[in-house]
Amino acid sequence: MKPLSCPVPISHYDQVLLAHGGGGKLTHQLIRDLFHPILDNEFLRQDHDGSEFPVNGNRLVMTTDSFVVKPIFFPGGNIGELAVNGTVNDLACCGARPLYLSVGLIIEEGLPMADLKTIMESMKKSADLAGVQIITGDTKVVDKGKGDQIFINTTGIGVIERPVHLNPKNVRPGDAILINGSIADHGICILSSREGLEFETTITSDTQCLNGLVEAILEVCPETRVIRDPTRGGLASTLNEIAESSQTCIELDEASLPVSEEVKGACELLGLDPLYVANEGKILVIVPEEKAEKVLDAMKKIPSGTGSCQIGKVKPTPASALVIKTSLGSSRIVDMISGEQLPRIC
Amino acid sequence: MKPLSCPVPISHYDQVLLAHGGGGKLTHQLIRDLFHPILDNEFLRQDHDGSEFPVNGNRLVMTTDSFVVKPIFFPGGNIGELAVNGTVNDLACCGARPLYLSVGLIIEEGLPMADLKTIMESMKKSADLAGVQIITGDTKVVDKGKGDQIFINTTGIGVIERPVHLNPKNVRPGDAILINGSIADHGICILSSREGLEFETTITSDTQCLNGLVEAILEVCPETRVIRDPTRGGLASTLNEIAESSQTCIELDEASLPVSEEVKGACELLGLDPLYVANEGKILVIVPEEKAEKVLDAMKKIPSGTGSCQIGKVKPTPASALVIKTSLGSSRIVDMISGEQLPRIC
Repeated sequence: MKPLSCPVPISHYDQVLLAHGGGGKLTHQLIRDLFHPILDNEFLRQDHDGSEFPVNGNRLVMTTDSFVVKPIFFPGGNIGELAVNGTVNDLACCGARPLYLSVGLIIEEGLPMADLKTIMESMKKSADLAGVQIITGDTKVVDKGKGDQIFINTTGIGVIERPVHLNPKNVRPGDAILINGSIADHGICILSSREGLEFETTITSDTQCLNGLVEAILEVCPETRVIRDPTRGGLASTLNEIAESSQTCIELDEASLPVSEEVKGACELLGLDPLYVANEGKILVIVPEEKAEKVLDAMKKIPSGTGSCQIGKVKPTPASALVIKTSLGSSRIVDMISGEQLPRIC
Repeated sequence: MKPLSCPVPISHYDQVLLAHGGGGKLTHQLIRDLFHPILDNEFLRQDHDGSEFPVNGNRLVMTTDSFVVKPIFFPGGNIGELAVNGTVNDLACCGARPLYLSVGLIIEEGLPMADLKTIMESMKKSADLAGVQIITGDTKVVDKGKGDQIFINTTGIGVIERPVHLNPKNVRPGDAILINGSIADHGICILSSREGLEFETTITSDTQCLNGLVEAILEVCPETRVIRDPTRGGLASTLNEIAESSQTCIELDEASLPVSEEVKGACELLGLDPLYVANEGKILVIVPEEKAEKVLDAMKKIPSGTGSCQIGKVKPTPASALVIKTSLGSSRIVDMISGEQLPRIC
């Protein structure tokens, strides 16, 4: 893999910065240059949203995510459903059927008990919708001012039952890049509710479970190259990672990128590029070109996939780059973001 | 199960209190009266440190714990090794061989990078000692003042390979109660370093992995009733839970309780009862009386078990109670603690 184009090496940083948690270059540098050399093993080198491990011939997957979103309640959801859907989707993106979740709560003293109840009810509802069970948990409480209402870790276990091998390294020139709907909804929703911004219509988070959608895709196209949910760091970060891993060029067609009018307006107002804004209910799907239509047809039949479309294709060069073809016909390289546009988005 | 003798019902609490995370009555009330009715399923009803689930005929176990200990560095360890050992031990207490861990970091902006490196190195070292692999992770960073240096969630997966069924419900009158060494070391260590207390000798945490010790016990006594690590809430909370589940009386012999002179002195000075103080490298083992000697012999051969001894026995009455026989010959009931003696002990 080519070295990350970070301005300075990890050894330069005396302290952990907010940007180290943003999902961009600094996060990748922290993982690659600090964590991996210490923890190094074959599992971490899988370079995925989760890790596949064998148990007596079964292909199991484990994935973990902590949720620190602020505010904890927002239009379209709350931290509880985000925590369930996020981990369910990471399992699904590994090609696994999600089975079980653990929940670790870190609560700041003083959280209203009614809020905790609402959050737990949302977790249960989301788990039921996704068909997973919350089987074990842990609760810690920290003193006032040493946390922020509630942080939730969910860790998930799933099982790969199909002969699939989803890996960005499988991506080949010619492949089609698909998405299941409009981008940047979650990030703009969080930012708007945090800042008290009001738009003509309320922008709601797209948080939802996507395991049913992934099932439908793998059913018609077991040779799918890779599926990823572009959360922190948005489409640009996820597609840059895939371009790097596969040493191909990911070319997006700007005109075909689905962005709602409300989100487009909010992004213009706020000076944000929707390519870098987080999603919570979207997946990027890369499939062989000849399967694109069949996969899109299957996706559109699932409620979370009605807005599915092709947004680009894979080219051989420039290798390891994400390129966007603008509506004016020009092309520009879209780099991975360095830090974060919006901290604590999930 | 008998109702918890909590002074007021959960509906009385408007807010989450520090005591809800203390591992005592209020934690149990929160889990039993708020979480379980919402999340209710057969797995949560297992009433264990982790949850056993089947995958194609394999008996797997999942357990999760978040660590919020303060300070993050203390004599004998740091939050990193605590996080690995704690989850490894919870798997072992379910009778499972620990296999894989996930790690979720929530870092407060400004944590010295050198501290993060030290913590990760400790995690790797502890994982190697326990024979587990850290296979997936997640890093979040929260703004300064919204966290406290670092919180770590570890979730573990293990496999039960022996025909064991460890469950407090299996405990029978006549059974022997064993422990692998001195109690209250971890809690007193944390409190001393937090408060800057100095004793003649430094009291160090007993954090260590105990899966090798559990293996040795189950090898000679597969009919072991239950194994538990008495962490938050100390021996008194864990033994009260077991007494309640089995509807027996757990009778401890005060004279045989191993407490180091330093810890005894510190407890007297601080007005703490070592029965309520947290341990991190200790297990309570309940076995049929006739196996006690054989199990003790096996335990003493393992480095983490050299201090093993019998500390009490199970009696039929008073049911659901923990009783301590004092060195003066009298008996008193030791209730579960309501809140916590020491917050953020692990």
